[in-house]
Amino acid sequence: MSETRTAQLMDGSGLAQRIVEETAARAAEITDRTGVAPCLATVLVGEDPASATYVRMKRARCAKAGITSRHIGLPATTTTAELVDTLAELSGDPDVHGILLQHPCGPHIDERAAFEAIAPEKDVDGVTMHSFAAMSFARPGFVSCTPGGIMRLLEAYDVELAGKRAVVVGRSAILGKPAGMLLLAKDATVTYCHSRTDDLSAIVREADVVVAAVGRPRLILGEDIKPGAVVIDAGYSPGNVGDVDHDTAVTRAGLITPVPGGVGPMTIAVLLEQTVRAAANQLGTRHHV
Amino acid sequence: MSETRTAQLMDGSGLAQRIVEETAARAAEITDRTGVAPCLATVLVGEDPASATYVRMKRARCAKAGITSRHIGLPATTTTAELVDTLAELSGDPDVHGILLQHPCGPHIDERAAFEAIAPEKDVDGVTMHSFAAMSFARPGFVSCTPGGIMRLLEAYDVELAGKRAVVVGRSAILGKPAGMLLLAKDATVTYCHSRTDDLSAIVREADVVVAAVGRPRLILGEDIKPGAVVIDAGYSPGNVGDVDHDTAVTRAGLITPVPGGVGPMTIAVLLEQTVRAAANQLGTRHHV
Repeated sequence: MSETRTAQLMDGSGLAQRIVEETAARAAEITDRTGVAPCLATVLVGEDPASATYVRMKRARCAKAGITSRHIGLPATTTTAELVDTLAELSGDPDVHGILLQHPCGPHIDERAAFEAIAPEKDVDGVTMHSFAAMSFARPGFVSCTPGGIMRLLEAYDVELAGKRAVVVGRSAILGKPAGMLLLAKDATVTYCHSRTDDLSAIVREADVVVAAVGRPRLILGEDIKPGAVVIDAGYSPGNVGDVDHDTAVTRAGLITPVPGGVGPMTIAVLLEQTVRAAANQLGTRHHV
Repeated sequence: MSETRTAQLMDGSGLAQRIVEETAARAAEITDRTGVAPCLATVLVGEDPASATYVRMKRARCAKAGITSRHIGLPATTTTAELVDTLAELSGDPDVHGILLQHPCGPHIDERAAFEAIAPEKDVDGVTMHSFAAMSFARPGFVSCTPGGIMRLLEAYDVELAGKRAVVVGRSAILGKPAGMLLLAKDATVTYCHSRTDDLSAIVREADVVVAAVGRPRLILGEDIKPGAVVIDAGYSPGNVGDVDHDTAVTRAGLITPVPGGVGPMTIAVLLEQTVRAAANQLGTRHHV
């Protein structure tokens, strides 16, 4: 029996492009008005090629949007204390409006200590404890970029969340946990699943919205997707493989993100948007976040 | 057909008493060693009789445990700015080790702004954004007292949480949300339900652990309790009525908290314990929280 595709693809690339265009216009406006372009500091520890590529890509997108970037490459031998010092210095530097610490930083770094050295008003990647609590309590602040991008996608496709069952698979500090909190703020009934969850399939089967955020290739099978559900695949494994078995999920979902071209581009769009918002706040062209 | 009680009652009063006794011993030790007794500042805005009673009760428990308390009663007309100033002053006062802002403070107060004026190292009631994020990320810090008390009860009764389905009904900043995060940190699969949840009964029926934290009398019926489940009733309504219909729930649950004598005494025990821990940290008799 041949199954047919029913799902509409959620065009993250297209939506991200529109957000980046608006962001570029806002950046130009700020630069015109103040004589200062929004500036993102990127910090990279070590020589991991994938991390270096991510940072390069983010800086290239910044450049295209009229955001300057200042790159600080630190040796792999950098200590937590040294990294904290660097981030604290950037936090105090009035020429820097947003700070991105590319992670993972390596096993010898206390990543949480490093994140906490980023001033909340420059935390455009949404990684600090303050940003997490702000997301959780629907307070002003920056969102973690991937969860923020997911929420923008859901909004763009008019996905009704109030009262719906949302299942977040994954509980990392910057993806799963904040994604769940943002969904809860939109009145979804939110379930967090993870590596210790018993019978993941049974729980996913009840979900109106599934957010897969683990990084385990094809962990979620199409047969577990409730017909018509919204499937957001925020997993990333080598070879552009997501957490969801796309070929089978697409026959049952109502809406589904492609990998690539779904969540990925949204993450960078939100980073750029928040950098410009941070600059506007700090340069006094707009009220505080 | 007459139903029989199957549930074991979870003795919050007894466990709280043991915690308070240990806390009193620790307080005496600190006082002996440093010449300074642990000190909790209690702040109350307005004249609400129930709030005044709560504060009086907490101060009486402090006194019995060898914790001094300093009470600041502010008029109902106090502004947010004035309240923030008072709390900031207490945060900077070396003679005060813990701060409790009795809430709700009244509709004219921005309660979040007030909470955030409490220094994290004195946030013994666990109400700041920092404390919430610390609970969420399993980092050192103070827990919200009621969720913290719930976790202690579950631990005392050897309730296995890893892989179990926990359902938290309620999503307040200091009860439902942190309770869910603490359960998630213990590897439970956590679902947040709330006023907008569709078919609450169906979700509760799947729960191995139910935490009811809404304050709606008998919202949860015994027929929805999975046989053998652990039921924590953290709701409180006038007349000692919980969120769970106790008489029917007791015939199905494996373990259940009574109201009163369940969660309530645990909340105060955790408050006292954390006050003494804060004092120990600040007086340098022990490493930081």
